[in-house]
Amino acid sequence: MIVAFQGRHGAYSEQAALRYFGRGTDTLPFDTLSEMAENIGGKAAYGIIPVENSVEGSVTASYDTVLENALLIVGEIILRIEHCLIANRGVVLEDVRRVYSHPQALGQCRRYLEGLHVEIIPQSNTAGSVEMIKQNGMLDAAAVAGEAAARIYGMQILKRNIESNKRNYTRFLIVSKGAAALKQGSKKTSIAFVTTHVPGALYRALGCFAGRGINLMYIQSRPIAGRPWHYRFYIDVEGHVQSKNVRSAIEELKKVSRSVRVFGTYPKARISS
Amino acid sequence: MIVAFQGRHGAYSEQAALRYFGRGTDTLPFDTLSEMAENIGGKAAYGIIPVENSVEGSVTASYDTVLENALLIVGEIILRIEHCLIANRGVVLEDVRRVYSHPQALGQCRRYLEGLHVEIIPQSNTAGSVEMIKQNGMLDAAAVAGEAAARIYGMQILKRNIESNKRNYTRFLIVSKGAAALKQGSKKTSIAFVTTHVPGALYRALGCFAGRGINLMYIQSRPIAGRPWHYRFYIDVEGHVQSKNVRSAIEELKKVSRSVRVFGTYPKARISS
Repeated sequence: MIVAFQGRHGAYSEQAALRYFGRGTDTLPFDTLSEMAENIGGKAAYGIIPVENSVEGSVTASYDTVLENALLIVGEIILRIEHCLIANRGVVLEDVRRVYSHPQALGQCRRYLEGLHVEIIPQSNTAGSVEMIKQNGMLDAAAVAGEAAARIYGMQILKRNIESNKRNYTRFLIVSKGAAALKQGSKKTSIAFVTTHVPGALYRALGCFAGRGINLMYIQSRPIAGRPWHYRFYIDVEGHVQSKNVRSAIEELKKVSRSVRVFGTYPKARISS
Repeated sequence: MIVAFQGRHGAYSEQAALRYFGRGTDTLPFDTLSEMAENIGGKAAYGIIPVENSVEGSVTASYDTVLENALLIVGEIILRIEHCLIANRGVVLEDVRRVYSHPQALGQCRRYLEGLHVEIIPQSNTAGSVEMIKQNGMLDAAAVAGEAAARIYGMQILKRNIESNKRNYTRFLIVSKGAAALKQGSKKTSIAFVTTHVPGALYRALGCFAGRGINLMYIQSRPIAGRPWHYRFYIDVEGHVQSKNVRSAIEELKKVSRSVRVFGTYPKARISS
């Protein structure tokens, strides 16, 4: 069984996949989220997609990827993000003139990095920055990435836990072409819908759930491409899609919306330490 | 009067500021959104902040910046985004091996750039990429930015309108330390609130407006730093904060929320061609 992820070996997404599926799992990296999504059900049985960070907020394109590639959500996992400053062996902190990483990781370590008075250089991904400074043998540079990236590329950790906010978690979705949930536990259901363009439409849509005492756990609005300022909403609600309560709420939602799509029912993740 | 923006001269934000305030306006660039925000009411009277793109969705940290720096929203403007491929004079398309720009701009031109078979290199900003390839005299590279960046740095446009989706607009907020709206027109009001952590809390909050027939124009949820999976909501509603209807809705919202903050009442922007 192979799990696809976006990034390079050592990426946080890969770590989350190994935590979810177990250490021995085969992982397959792709450069972009859309390449990754296209290979699910082909080269890989599952994929893992970051969907929300507790500091930065929603990863904007994640649900769009699920929707556009007709994927189903079969699980989720929450990973604590601990950023390290990583360099080639022999490099000391005083040597570092430039720091490379993904803009989101750089942003999350802003306070620490400002104190270093170094040049900040954005890259496409975190683990890929570690690989790059290794391949180029850079002795005046460092990268921000997870501990696993340092281990995989045989690099040195100059400083651990450089993130400004220690309560830094990312939630990842496990996606596939089939709908079977992989784990036990109390369920949540992910739904996408487009409201009609009338005042109060979102309120009416949410009322389908609130009126039945169903808890809304997440809401995100996303523009619909080609129709400026029209939105699709992505929500998570508590409960199984086949429970009487959730099923009848979705039936009502279909009556008050332009379109409704259910992404899957799967066990809620807990925040791990 | 000086207007602050994030980026380099030629940035889309600067173009939006000149469109809003008029051609002769003095603009002042800052490297980061937070530096920019700190200088409003000091070096600059106003600032301009991108808040939402019709293709990519919300610019995640924008409202957080408004909140954290106690800014008020006094206006908004919507700008059509037309990306150009820009290079040094003398360079032809066949010479281009690498393309530099902000990740969001690169993403919006993905279809065109994939056809070029070049290396894609993310940078902190669009106009800054143009400046960089000029300063380094690069003859095998190009940058993605607006027409204004090509003009300001005396560069050549290799190709116009390379964005995948032509209905590409960005909405910008005009912010200041004082509350006076600058233009005439029918009003909207921006509000931030934190719900209590009970099922149906968001539904009850939105009901304060829906129950009075007040149109909800925008909603965004953002994590609250240090409290994982607790959210602050940013909404725009139609109407003036001092109208009887909106005022009483906000009074009710205060009763059902942990905290409420009104960012300002200002004229709605229209989509310009």
